[in-house]
Amino acid sequence: MALRAGLVGVTGYTGMELVRILAGHPSLRLSAAASRGNAGSRLEEVYPFLRGLPCGGIVLTAPDASSLAAECDVIFLAVPHGVAMETGAALYDAGARVVDLSADFRLRDASVFTAWYKTVHSRPDLLASAVYGLPELNAPAIRESRLVANPGCYPTASILALYPALRHDLIRADDIVIDAKSGASGAGRALEPNMLFCEVQDSFRPYKLGQHRHTPEIEQELSLLAGKALTVSFNPHLLPVNRGILATIYTRLKKSVPQEEIQALFEQTWAGSPWVRVLPPGRLPETRNVRGTMFCDVAVVADTRADRLIIVSAIDNLCRGASGQAVANANLMCGLPPADGLSFAPLLP
Amino acid sequence: MALRAGLVGVTGYTGMELVRILAGHPSLRLSAAASRGNAGSRLEEVYPFLRGLPCGGIVLTAPDASSLAAECDVIFLAVPHGVAMETGAALYDAGARVVDLSADFRLRDASVFTAWYKTVHSRPDLLASAVYGLPELNAPAIRESRLVANPGCYPTASILALYPALRHDLIRADDIVIDAKSGASGAGRALEPNMLFCEVQDSFRPYKLGQHRHTPEIEQELSLLAGKALTVSFNPHLLPVNRGILATIYTRLKKSVPQEEIQALFEQTWAGSPWVRVLPPGRLPETRNVRGTMFCDVAVVADTRADRLIIVSAIDNLCRGASGQAVANANLMCGLPPADGLSFAPLLP
Amino acid sequence: MALRAGLVGVTGYTGMELVRILAGHPSLRLSAAASRGNAGSRLEEVYPFLRGLPCGGIVLTAPDASSLAAECDVIFLAVPHGVAMETGAALYDAGARVVDLSADFRLRDASVFTAWYKTVHSRPDLLASAVYGLPELNAPAIRESRLVANPGCYPTASILALYPALRHDLIRADDIVIDAKSGASGAGRALEPNMLFCEVQDSFRPYKLGQHRHTPEIEQELSLLAGKALTVSFNPHLLPVNRGILATIYTRLKKSVPQEEIQALFEQTWAGSPWVRVLPPGRLPETRNVRGTMFCDVAVVADTRADRLIIVSAIDNLCRGASGQAVANANLMCGLPPADGLSFAPLLP
Amino acid sequence: MALRAGLVGVTGYTGMELVRILAGHPSLRLSAAASRGNAGSRLEEVYPFLRGLPCGGIVLTAPDASSLAAECDVIFLAVPHGVAMETGAALYDAGARVVDLSADFRLRDASVFTAWYKTVHSRPDLLASAVYGLPELNAPAIRESRLVANPGCYPTASILALYPALRHDLIRADDIVIDAKSGASGAGRALEPNMLFCEVQDSFRPYKLGQHRHTPEIEQELSLLAGKALTVSFNPHLLPVNRGILATIYTRLKKSVPQEEIQALFEQTWAGSPWVRVLPPGRLPETRNVRGTMFCDVAVVADTRADRLIIVSAIDNLCRGASGQAVANANLMCGLPPADGLSFAPLLP
Repeated sequence: MALRAGLVGVTGYTGMELVRILAGHPSLRLSAAASRGNAGSRLEEVYPFLRGLPCGGIVLTAPDASSLAAECDVIFLAVPHGVAMETGAALYDAGARVVDLSADFRLRDASVFTAWYKTVHSRPDLLASAVYGLPELNAPAIRESRLVANPGCYPTASILALYPALRHDLIRADDIVIDAKSGASGAGRALEPNMLFCEVQDSFRPYKLGQHRHTPEIEQELSLLAGKALTVSFNPHLLPVNRGILATIYTRLKKSVPQEEIQALFEQTWAGSPWVRVLPPGRLPETRNVRGTMFCDVAVVADTRADRLIIVSAIDNLCRGASGQAVANANLMCGLPPADGLSFAPLLP
Repeated sequence: MALRAGLVGVTGYTGMELVRILAGHPSLRLSAAASRGNAGSRLEEVYPFLRGLPCGGIVLTAPDASSLAAECDVIFLAVPHGVAMETGAALYDAGARVVDLSADFRLRDASVFTAWYKTVHSRPDLLASAVYGLPELNAPAIRESRLVANPGCYPTASILALYPALRHDLIRADDIVIDAKSGASGAGRALEPNMLFCEVQDSFRPYKLGQHRHTPEIEQELSLLAGKALTVSFNPHLLPVNRGILATIYTRLKKSVPQEEIQALFEQTWAGSPWVRVLPPGRLPETRNVRGTMFCDVAVVADTRADRLIIVSAIDNLCRGASGQAVANANLMCGLPPADGLSFAPLLP
Repeated sequence: MALRAGLVGVTGYTGMELVRILAGHPSLRLSAAASRGNAGSRLEEVYPFLRGLPCGGIVLTAPDASSLAAECDVIFLAVPHGVAMETGAALYDAGARVVDLSADFRLRDASVFTAWYKTVHSRPDLLASAVYGLPELNAPAIRESRLVANPGCYPTASILALYPALRHDLIRADDIVIDAKSGASGAGRALEPNMLFCEVQDSFRPYKLGQHRHTPEIEQELSLLAGKALTVSFNPHLLPVNRGILATIYTRLKKSVPQEEIQALFEQTWAGSPWVRVLPPGRLPETRNVRGTMFCDVAVVADTRADRLIIVSAIDNLCRGASGQAVANANLMCGLPPADGLSFAPLLP
Repeated sequence: MALRAGLVGVTGYTGMELVRILAGHPSLRLSAAASRGNAGSRLEEVYPFLRGLPCGGIVLTAPDASSLAAECDVIFLAVPHGVAMETGAALYDAGARVVDLSADFRLRDASVFTAWYKTVHSRPDLLASAVYGLPELNAPAIRESRLVANPGCYPTASILALYPALRHDLIRADDIVIDAKSGASGAGRALEPNMLFCEVQDSFRPYKLGQHRHTPEIEQELSLLAGKALTVSFNPHLLPVNRGILATIYTRLKKSVPQEEIQALFEQTWAGSPWVRVLPPGRLPETRNVRGTMFCDVAVVADTRADRLIIVSAIDNLCRGASGQAVANANLMCGLPPADGLSFAPLLP
């Protein structure tokens, strides 16, 4: 008998991706979907691609915390920053298990949240209870939690790439540049003129250099791993693709270590992981190789000539970087195997 | 205990798609893969996206009909036209169940094959044994067959669109124009200068107007449905997308029928189908809505002003139009439920 | 000494394209630009790509008919349907030469306008004065006119393709299907959810089958050419490309004519044209071959097997299908050579 | 009376772009085109987009140094590395003015060439005569030269971006990372499986991290500017776009300088340039804003929080990064104004 999942927020790409994933989940079934703007519609009217799938017939309701909490084993929040802290707190207070895909519960320090998000946090008391939902690093805590802050897409790609280097103390942690490139679905489905097809297609651009809101999240988690406060230079760019993040990370070795040894340390670190794939020497990640999946492909290149260690990672920003990771967290919270319903092969081409 | 599937031919997109689908199949397991050029390699060396999946470790062998026939419950042929007739015949003669993704066994009449493919058929004796593998129309025969000719991508989209109209004798069968548009994966992975990225991206072109080899296949099957010989005007175009076929079909009603009645006949015809989705009035197919799936979305529009009946269909050319349909056929041949392992939700965006 | 051009409306793609073209025009200089929403800004603030070009420094003003009419030799209207009829009439009444890129003055019959555009025409008196601005067909009238209705993009591609066939009475004029495909810039720059990058990229869809507003415009002009009222089946689709229209037109020959003769008639008809290129047998149009130019590439294929005559045309919807054609009309109205400033080579890839 | 230009090599994208540019050049006319493989064809048969343009009728000849040298005022070499050194030397010896678009004459030191290109240079004696053809830096020497080595696309974007910082001694020259992203036309038109449409579309990948052949070229020229030997970390990526390079360059200030002062120094440095556009604070380059042009858009961002100076530049790799720059060099060599025939406005969208 499948567990029941609820979804609040259905107009964005992360909501769409959650429904896609849950449509094939063997033990977690979408049983309720709430949306302020579309209450009364069937889900397949909002998402025409769902026609013919069982979940397509679900009738959207107005969000109601107590009934959702009563009816669902776990609830996914796919609503904007700022809204999520209210809805998430109401659901948490009503006793629900909550996976929040927004940024509202990711930062430990409410003042850092305010500084980067220009919003006062209405429920700072919950920040200590929320667990940062990166399954590879925090599975035990996630299992025990009722409030999981699902990581951002860029932080997921960045942290998984840097973790082996920090854990084995290979790099100069004060010298990290992350040059990240994301597909357009990362910008969400809001109506922005510069996200129209003709503004993105056949072009490429950076944005918010040094100012993206995922920066403090990356720094918070890397600092925990490094055991000291880190500052990173994080710089995003917009790719004319639907899905995919590729991060090229520039750092330096603390001391000379042979490429083979670095490669071996990366491979050992992720040897037990179902999803992080350390590529063999000579291979580099491509976003298409992880399309639609939970995989994070990682390569490490020691460029001794230029005295740099380059780490490259690629994920699907919507699956691994958002909704798939949310389902992994829900699996853990509900006592299911973490990879349940998440063993997708990449869709190529 | 899963049945064993073999694959001959791994360098093309249909081979890649077969492996993607079989990687998630609950009861059919890829157990052998053969390739003339890559024997000795592991599958994940040819397809880097397979790393971390069980099938990635399969070692490619040189094709050998008798051992494949002995070891596999069903064998997929993803080799070029002309090669398939030899390999397919050898496997068939060795007692295997064969699903051939090439065109070699699709046409009943060897002289029609020769006329369009400029090749003499080496095994015309097998044409009568081969079953045209469109599950919606031919499931009983497919179940009994050991040699299934997997339909072409354009014919799949065209026949499923026109079937309700022909079955209910709605249209003037001598007046059918199919304007079809396909993504670039339909051209296969051969090295053609005009298939380089910069020759296709941000452009659009027709090709082989009135001369595409899928024409006689479409005519053969539509003629069977209509009960008389039909000629269609079939005209393909190349889309700058990876996957997807959309066919816009122009015909005329035999006599005036209200739009609602036509809609109802289309819906009734496909009411029992797991995969053909007749869209409600006002909705039109989009290739993204079927991406990565077995769905065929169909809409019918009666334009009384211009005296045309317009039928639109969309499929994923690699999944529904090739490898997914091949797996459906294999399911039927092996006594499995036809939709086993094929219940994908579309990947959007 | 260059003539002075004015522009009303700068937020859309046709405005952008006008400025691009005028930036290189030897005898027509952009001297004034008006925009309700951006008055006071410099043009390069609205269009960052203009920095470093002389026109980038033009300061936008609020639209004022009398001062624009006084200061400009010709004025381009790149404002929405409905607005253009008011602004265009005011400029015309003030004595200006006007090239209107909207649909407001294209249809001779105000009731047809109302039927398709769901708007009552406020200045039907001007419809008889307006000239349909297709230079190949109407150059003499354009030269004498002060109000030119610049053709729609789809009609431009359709009429130029069909003109030789109608002029030489080759086809059955009651049997014309136009299957047209347009790049996304044809939809303009308005904020529509289904025009976001992720809704268009790697997908393809038809829209408004049999109901597009360019239908009566095509029928009006083809009827004039045929000498009798025609109805066409016009069906547009959205391509995931920035620019480009390709129309595949299906009709039938009145009587059998050899392919060579048809080819010769098409070539003769367009022999004197600087822009219509009839391709040699075996070649088919591609949108990239006309990118950024005034060219209209045309191919004609007689498919005797299926009893169809297929005519294919390709244009750049923004240049030939809108702003470039508008400049050609302005050239004619101002007594300049029609191709002045318009001899672009295509940008490939 | 126009000067006569010759072209050797017509099968690649740089050859196509040269012809596009020369088609609109007021004082330099393509008068001869040579190609080993296509001798006897008309240019428009190789490049269908040229139909209807005067140069389309040029008949290709087999390359012959003495006749080309005799008939042309300047000759462009658009042939592969290794071939160019032979052909270029022959033309130079025959007295011609040569602009070589390959890498063969860019590196001063033949041993560096051999180390990176794995080829022994057959004419090292000419390296001292060749001038590195970056017009902004070397115009006087280019004017006097008969052999100009046209810069690589990545070096053009990198050097123009870093020049103001090095000239004003703002940065730590031992700490430069260039993360560069290029459209697919940069890979040329050779038939590589991984350049097929379906291998590039909707994906993104790095390649040759720390090992790209443009690295020594960048280092050579930056070292000249810095007055000491520099090593840079240069890392290219492949974008799913036709044209465009965007380089994101990470370095550090030598000492604290206010952002306004850095901005002012960049603006002053490029104040006289017709093509380098230093963007105002808050604006960042996009490849579309330079499409089809000679512009190099540059932005500089001082991220004091992360202690980085970030410089971003964007060019069109085919125009500014290859053929347009070659024409600028030819203009200088022939005594023409450098921007003659090169004042393109960008093509957007």
